[in-house]
Amino acid sequence: MPTAKAYAASSPTSALSHLSIPRRDPTDRDVEIDILYCGVCHSDLHQARNEWSAMPTVYPCVPGHEIVGRITQVGSAVKKHKVGDIVGVGCLVGSDQSCPQCAANLEQFCPHATFTYNSPDKHGTAPVTYGGYSSSIVVDEHFALTVPANLSLPGVAPLLCAGITTYSPMRRWGDLKGKKVGVVGLGGLGHMGVKFAHAFGAHTVVISTSPKKKDAALALGADEVIISSDANEMQRHAFSFDFILDTVSADHDINSYLNLLKIDGTLTLVGAPDKPLPVSAFGLLFGRKRLAGSLIGGIAETQEMLDFCGTHGITSDVEIIPIQKINEAYDRLLKSDVKYRFSIDMASLKAE
Amino acid sequence: MPTAKAYAASSPTSALSHLSIPRRDPTDRDVEIDILYCGVCHSDLHQARNEWSAMPTVYPCVPGHEIVGRITQVGSAVKKHKVGDIVGVGCLVGSDQSCPQCAANLEQFCPHATFTYNSPDKHGTAPVTYGGYSSSIVVDEHFALTVPANLSLPGVAPLLCAGITTYSPMRRWGDLKGKKVGVVGLGGLGHMGVKFAHAFGAHTVVISTSPKKKDAALALGADEVIISSDANEMQRHAFSFDFILDTVSADHDINSYLNLLKIDGTLTLVGAPDKPLPVSAFGLLFGRKRLAGSLIGGIAETQEMLDFCGTHGITSDVEIIPIQKINEAYDRLLKSDVKYRFSIDMASLKAE
Repeated sequence: MPTAKAYAASSPTSALSHLSIPRRDPTDRDVEIDILYCGVCHSDLHQARNEWSAMPTVYPCVPGHEIVGRITQVGSAVKKHKVGDIVGVGCLVGSDQSCPQCAANLEQFCPHATFTYNSPDKHGTAPVTYGGYSSSIVVDEHFALTVPANLSLPGVAPLLCAGITTYSPMRRWGDLKGKKVGVVGLGGLGHMGVKFAHAFGAHTVVISTSPKKKDAALALGADEVIISSDANEMQRHAFSFDFILDTVSADHDINSYLNLLKIDGTLTLVGAPDKPLPVSAFGLLFGRKRLAGSLIGGIAETQEMLDFCGTHGITSDVEIIPIQKINEAYDRLLKSDVKYRFSIDMASLKAE
Repeated sequence: MPTAKAYAASSPTSALSHLSIPRRDPTDRDVEIDILYCGVCHSDLHQARNEWSAMPTVYPCVPGHEIVGRITQVGSAVKKHKVGDIVGVGCLVGSDQSCPQCAANLEQFCPHATFTYNSPDKHGTAPVTYGGYSSSIVVDEHFALTVPANLSLPGVAPLLCAGITTYSPMRRWGDLKGKKVGVVGLGGLGHMGVKFAHAFGAHTVVISTSPKKKDAALALGADEVIISSDANEMQRHAFSFDFILDTVSADHDINSYLNLLKIDGTLTLVGAPDKPLPVSAFGLLFGRKRLAGSLIGGIAETQEMLDFCGTHGITSDVEIIPIQKINEAYDRLLKSDVKYRFSIDMASLKAE
C-alpha cells in the first residue's frame, strides 16, 4: 500500500508530529491529489484534542479539511478531472449517493457521509480517514472540486470549509443586494462572511466585541462596524437587519443579536458554541424572527462558491506557515492571533 | 361619557370583580359593539396578575381579547360594518396605519399599536384600554372583523387570539398538504393548531407529555400522537417533521423537539416561556433547522382566518361560563382543566 507523509496527533494532549500514513491506490472512481496547501480550521484543533463529546477522536488523528492540490493519478472511470488539474477537497470525501439528501445535492446531511478526517474509512485503508495535513490524499472524484485558474492557491484552501460555510446560508437566504447584513465575529469564518456579503451587494455590517477590528473590517469590504458592547449603538440598530451571520463559537448573548433583526429576519449560526444558547422566546415572537443553523454545503454548492470566488477574485486572507509550525499555530488560533486563516505550505512536509 | 359593566382586577392578588368603566361615544370611524361572548386567554391571567415584567399592569385591569358581539352604533364614516353585524375583536384595537408594518398588514408589529387591554388609551377615555370582560366596547372599524354567519358564537370568540396565533405561522409556512406537521401541547392554542393543520391537509401529529390526551387529540383531527416522554418514540420520529407548532408556555426541552424536524424544517414558538430556552447550536446546524416565533396576525390575515373557519366549519371547543365564574376559571386554567377554552357568556354580566 502506498504511504504519505503526514502530521498527526497521537493523543488529546500531544503535539502534532510527523507520521507515515497509508493511502490507498486510486479505485476507478478515485483521484490522487498531491496536496499543495491545507488551511487550518478551528475544527482541526477541536478534533485533535478530542474536545467534541459527540465525535470522539480516534488516534492517530490527521486533521485538515481545507485542501488544495494537483491531481497525480486518476482511476479508469474518472470523468470530471484529469492529471495535472488543480482541485480542492473540503470536509467531505464520501456519501452514499443514493439517499434523498444526496439526490438533493446535500451530501453533508447524508446519513452515510464520510468526513475528511476521523470518519470510519470505508475503504479499510485505516480505521478512520486521514485529512489534509499530509503530502497526498485519494478521494472519489465527486468530492474533488475544480479550482478557478485565477485564484492564489494558499488563499483558496480555506474556501473549502470557511468559504462554503459562510457562502451557503447567505446564498440560500435569497438576493442580498441592498439588504442589511450583519456578520458577528471577524475570524476565519467572519472575514469570509464579510467578503461574500460585500460581493452579494449587501450593506455589510461587522458586529464585533473589539473596537480594534474596525479598520480591518472596513478593509475587507464592510460598510459599517458596530461594537457589540456599546448598548446605545446596538439599540440604534435594533430591528434593522435582514440577515445576520453569527460565526462565534464562544459563549455570547444571542438575544442581543436577535434584537438587531427586522421583522421576519433570520440569524444563522455557523459557529457551534459548546453550551446551549439561552434564547428568549419573546425576542423571537415580537418580530417573527428566526434562529437557524447551517453546516458547510453540498458538493454542487461548493463548486458554485468556488466559481463565484473565481468571478469575483475572492480568496481567504492567509498567513502561510510550514507544517513544522502547526502546534504554534494552534496556540495562536486560541488567542485569535491570525489574520485570518493559517494555510500550510505542504512543500515543508515533503522536504522532511 | 357612556359607561359599561365590566369585570376587573384591582391588584395583582385580588379576584376579578364588577366595575363600571367608561366607554367613549363612537367617533366617525368607530363601531360600538354589544359584547356577546369573550374567550379566556392565558394572557388575561398573566396581565391581571402583573406577571409580565416587560408589560406592567395598570389597575384596574379589564382583560379579554377574544371578543364577539353585535354592532349597536356606527360612526358617520364607517364603511365596513353596519348596525346589527356580528363582528369580532382580537388583541388589537389600534395602530398608526401609516408605518411600514401597517402598510404590510402587520398591525401587530406597528410601533404605535394599541392592544385591547392595558395599552395607553389614545382616546383618553381611561388611562389604559379596557378589554372584553365587559358589556360593550368601542373600536375603530378597521379592527372589527366580520364573523361568518354559519359559526357558533361562543366558539368563535377564541378564534380572535388562539385561532389567529396558530393559523398564521402554519399559513405562512406554505402549502402544508401532505406535509408532516407536529403540534406540541394540547391546550387552547394546541387544539386550534390541530384543527388548522388537519384542515390544511397535513399529516397532523400531536406531541404531548400526557398519554391520556391521545383519544382527545385523535378526535380533534390528529392522525397520530407521540408521547414526548417516550425516548424511543421520539427517536423513531427524528428528522421527519416539516413543521412543528410549539404552543407550550411552560419550561420544556426544546432540543428534543428540534430533533424531530427534517432538514430545513421549522419549529415555531407561539407560547412564551418566561425563562430563556437553552438551544443547542449543533441541533440547528446538523439539518439547517430553524427556530422561529410568531405573534398573532395582522387584521387582513385575521379576517382570512375567520373566512377559512367559515368555509371549513372550524370553531374552538369551549366551555361556556358566566362572568361570575371567572376567578374559578383562572384557577382551573392553571391546572389545564378545560377543554379547551373558556368562553364567557356576557348575558351573565348584563344581568348583574
